[in-house]
Amino acid sequence: MSYGILINGHPKNTISAQDRGLHYGDGLFETIAVIHGQLRHWLRHYQRLAEGCERLKLPLPEDAVLIKEAARLSKTLERGVLKLILTRGIGGRGYRIPEAVAPLRILATYPWPDYPERFYREGIIVRICATRFGRNPLLAGLKHLNRLEQVMARSEWSDPAIAEGLIQDTEGAVISGTMSNVFLVQEGTLITPDLFQCGIRGIMRGVILDAAHEIGIPSMIRSVSLDEVYTAGEAFLCNSLVGIWPIREIIGEREKRFSLGDVTGTLRETIKVDHAT
Amino acid sequence: MSYGILINGHPKNTISAQDRGLHYGDGLFETIAVIHGQLRHWLRHYQRLAEGCERLKLPLPEDAVLIKEAARLSKTLERGVLKLILTRGIGGRGYRIPEAVAPLRILATYPWPDYPERFYREGIIVRICATRFGRNPLLAGLKHLNRLEQVMARSEWSDPAIAEGLIQDTEGAVISGTMSNVFLVQEGTLITPDLFQCGIRGIMRGVILDAAHEIGIPSMIRSVSLDEVYTAGEAFLCNSLVGIWPIREIIGEREKRFSLGDVTGTLRETIKVDHAT
Repeated sequence: MSYGILINGHPKNTISAQDRGLHYGDGLFETIAVIHGQLRHWLRHYQRLAEGCERLKLPLPEDAVLIKEAARLSKTLERGVLKLILTRGIGGRGYRIPEAVAPLRILATYPWPDYPERFYREGIIVRICATRFGRNPLLAGLKHLNRLEQVMARSEWSDPAIAEGLIQDTEGAVISGTMSNVFLVQEGTLITPDLFQCGIRGIMRGVILDAAHEIGIPSMIRSVSLDEVYTAGEAFLCNSLVGIWPIREIIGEREKRFSLGDVTGTLRETIKVDHAT
Repeated sequence: MSYGILINGHPKNTISAQDRGLHYGDGLFETIAVIHGQLRHWLRHYQRLAEGCERLKLPLPEDAVLIKEAARLSKTLERGVLKLILTRGIGGRGYRIPEAVAPLRILATYPWPDYPERFYREGIIVRICATRFGRNPLLAGLKHLNRLEQVMARSEWSDPAIAEGLIQDTEGAVISGTMSNVFLVQEGTLITPDLFQCGIRGIMRGVILDAAHEIGIPSMIRSVSLDEVYTAGEAFLCNSLVGIWPIREIIGEREKRFSLGDVTGTLRETIKVDHAT
């Protein structure tokens, strides 16, 4: 098993120091699970990339090109991560988008993150971050390259026993983890924050909402307060790599313990990704 | 006259595709005017960089190292631009900051931007951008690498007769231009938006506020509404490269013409940078 990188189709590991991805974070990315050499949920990832390209006025690479390059890197991967970065490329001094844009695409594979098995089985400990997300509908939902808020939130703790941190926006609405989306269960109903103002519309979030719909679990996408997290019956985090991590405990000024719940369990069975096994 | 680039002191033009500057915009930058081989306002630029490093928990490069490398690139420049980029370097999969951080510093020189002489002499035409800045005190004021909002705002127009666009925040407060800070004059008092929620604390903004103080022009730093822009007696934009650009006209749904004003003129005399000449 080996990890590799392709930049505009060529195996190399450097980019121009003039790239707009570096200068402005002018681009998008996707983080894709690779299992038995196959990309998981490729269509959903490509669809989000397409939406991001439309909103950022970036040319969307052809599906076939990305799939071919992804296959070159991932076909021998038993389990791994494919990260796709798309930038507006080199060009223009200043913010103005140059007339001839030559986008840069980077596809790179990485080892599977080695989270402890108990995170999946027993659930995780989370904390509440002091860092908040700013609100801007223009960029909300997209997986763009402006991610300083997440970096700052993740820098708040180093204790490896704490798996994730919950982040609120500047108005106090609960949005997500630093690298995951959040779901609550209240009286049998699945609730996840709307992401109209900030946050990233995660692929696994979409998979879970669709699964809930299929098996008849009612769900709501709406604004969620921090109080609701503390009064929820079940709570879990999700992303494309970990699938579902039940929240076992919230630590900090205000503490809360959750039992492993039925709705969370049913959803895990349904989406059939226990990436830890 | 030639332009060059140094990356961690070495003349090359590529960075690792794994750099956190690319992946997350995890870093800072400065854009510095070089006149007759000298960096303009270096101490102010370094001070802002230091403040940014403190807030982003980035190691600050030594003053002497940066000055030495800047001198190598700029000593033969009659007039040009030095851009300094500082990133958290390679490291860590995911947002978490790696324990051993090896920051990347890029210093590169560029030609002086060739804005028309009349922008300085007669003033400029500006428009009001639809793109808004999100509010986040955590990152407000810093010249960090998350600049998609500016890119999107600048992409709203391509008419070269329009020199700049004014940007409001999501609550409607006027913050700045896409690449400049904004000042108004109301009954002899200089007014510039506070940047507690968003925007970049520009070096020329600080120079102008200090100059106003020295020559006895009263000034206020406070929230500014769009209405106030239309009722101001004078208005101008500023940055480290252009110095002061008087606003001559605001175009769009609501139009406004300004005459060249005394306070603007006095400040231009005082700061003694007419970079166009």
